[in-house]
Amino acid sequence: MKDLYPSRVYQKPKILERKDPVIHGDKQSAKEGPLNEQQLKEYEKNGFLLLKNFFSPQEVKKMRVELDRLWQENKHNASPEVIREPGSQEIRSIFDAHRKNELFHDLARDPRITYMIQQLLGSDVYVHQFRINFKPGFKGKEFYWHSDFETWHVEDGMPRMRAVSCSILLTDNHSYNGPLMLVPGSHNYFVSCVGETPEDNYKTSLKKQELGVPDHDSLSWLVKKGGITTATGPAGSLLLFECNTMHGSSGNISPEPRSNVFFVYNSVENALVKPFSGQKPRPEFLANRTTQTPELDKPAEKVDMSSKKTG
Amino acid sequence: MKDLYPSRVYQKPKILERKDPVIHGDKQSAKEGPLNEQQLKEYEKNGFLLLKNFFSPQEVKKMRVELDRLWQENKHNASPEVIREPGSQEIRSIFDAHRKNELFHDLARDPRITYMIQQLLGSDVYVHQFRINFKPGFKGKEFYWHSDFETWHVEDGMPRMRAVSCSILLTDNHSYNGPLMLVPGSHNYFVSCVGETPEDNYKTSLKKQELGVPDHDSLSWLVKKGGITTATGPAGSLLLFECNTMHGSSGNISPEPRSNVFFVYNSVENALVKPFSGQKPRPEFLANRTTQTPELDKPAEKVDMSSKKTG
Repeated sequence: MKDLYPSRVYQKPKILERKDPVIHGDKQSAKEGPLNEQQLKEYEKNGFLLLKNFFSPQEVKKMRVELDRLWQENKHNASPEVIREPGSQEIRSIFDAHRKNELFHDLARDPRITYMIQQLLGSDVYVHQFRINFKPGFKGKEFYWHSDFETWHVEDGMPRMRAVSCSILLTDNHSYNGPLMLVPGSHNYFVSCVGETPEDNYKTSLKKQELGVPDHDSLSWLVKKGGITTATGPAGSLLLFECNTMHGSSGNISPEPRSNVFFVYNSVENALVKPFSGQKPRPEFLANRTTQTPELDKPAEKVDMSSKKTG
Repeated sequence: MKDLYPSRVYQKPKILERKDPVIHGDKQSAKEGPLNEQQLKEYEKNGFLLLKNFFSPQEVKKMRVELDRLWQENKHNASPEVIREPGSQEIRSIFDAHRKNELFHDLARDPRITYMIQQLLGSDVYVHQFRINFKPGFKGKEFYWHSDFETWHVEDGMPRMRAVSCSILLTDNHSYNGPLMLVPGSHNYFVSCVGETPEDNYKTSLKKQELGVPDHDSLSWLVKKGGITTATGPAGSLLLFECNTMHGSSGNISPEPRSNVFFVYNSVENALVKPFSGQKPRPEFLANRTTQTPELDKPAEKVDMSSKKTG
């Protein structure tokens, strides 16, 4: 398959134009989903959409219970799905918990989410990756700027930009506890990064990403164009962001954890191929290659979300 | 001299009550300075006061020119006044530049600043410390939570809480480029920290402070009580904060530097004694022991600042 988005192959960084639509499928059917026209426009323009208070406090409470349980259960778990903070043994992320956890398993198929994703991706969808980012208080470290798609393309073989991340805020995300920062409009450009990918790069990159990150000039160019938006909001808010939107977050020295869960949905028409790095695929918990049955194969009743506040 | 604020001496952290007023001198004369009653109340309650757009864009421009010149000049300067970022050779801070730099020397004696400080400290004042914090884009690292007074007391022998930091924002301080975060009301409590001070602690602590920082429980208690305020504002804004106000800042992965200059003013009635750690004093560039002539010995004409916006 031709590599439409070559990265980590050139001597110098390059900024390439996006070759895929942002909202997929035909325009008419896109209009028929739960997101209204203004929300679609905002997502298409910025590459993300924040829906404040998407889940009720009761729902958030249930998720927090599971979150705390997973944190406790995995304190001494040495499996590769559990990523530790650089410089401490605190849990940074847990991957793939939705396979073993009923609540997160069901949440992945929640029609309030999947219908929106189908609307954006113009097809059936499946969960490509699931992770919890705890960002504990006092010592949660930064996530440097990156486009998820860059890694998923190079290291996992995701061919096209046709995936969406859905982040659910499980604690209040304030300006001071390391909220996600996004560069509006950055999803329209692919920053081809420099540096060759070493084998098993993920073993260090999930603690601290040093490859597949944009060079200073490209990042400055994107920020000059689009600025930086900080996705702050109360627990229960939901952030949709396009797979190529440049994002990152600062560390968290505040006492309040900034814990979010991420579902990454991919179009069933965009299944993974061989990694474009030429290396062996990353483990299944980082990139689902085996279970691509749609999370919902036919839309049931339409869910009305037009009243949800966009912030 | 009796140690009113013992720290790094007990086995366990303690929270002690403040034993000094926040606004010093008699109430009547405090009312006669440039800060109005509301501003004084705010400072007394929160332990800080942000005066947005205090300096004109023209003044900021001149300061930026000096800042850039100092950055260039000191790139390869190995003197101890120039502190590097942990993990890189980027300049983190430059101390004491006001002694050699005309603009910053004059700024230290600018009556628009010194009259406010005299009003707060109820006496003549002198510059205890001067530093520039560059916090460069992409790789500026965090400053963990601390009370400046804790260090100045233990390591420098500042007897009482009768000093004010004056931070001038020389770049726009956004929520995303690592602005100062402060805990309102924290100046009313002294967190007695644990751990003995090693000799020459400053050689590592100015890159990354690990001693004289509050324990998690004390910090959580203070934040629960007062919350966290992020001091964002345009270049040219001025932040006054009490020497014991708990503050810190996150790293800066954005392309935009967050550069501020800090003048620390101490009351002439609060001159340094022997360090309470029992160790030898830190170098002069960190704690002025020799030149305590008042920056302005008699107030000239009154400067009206009541129209300055408080934000």
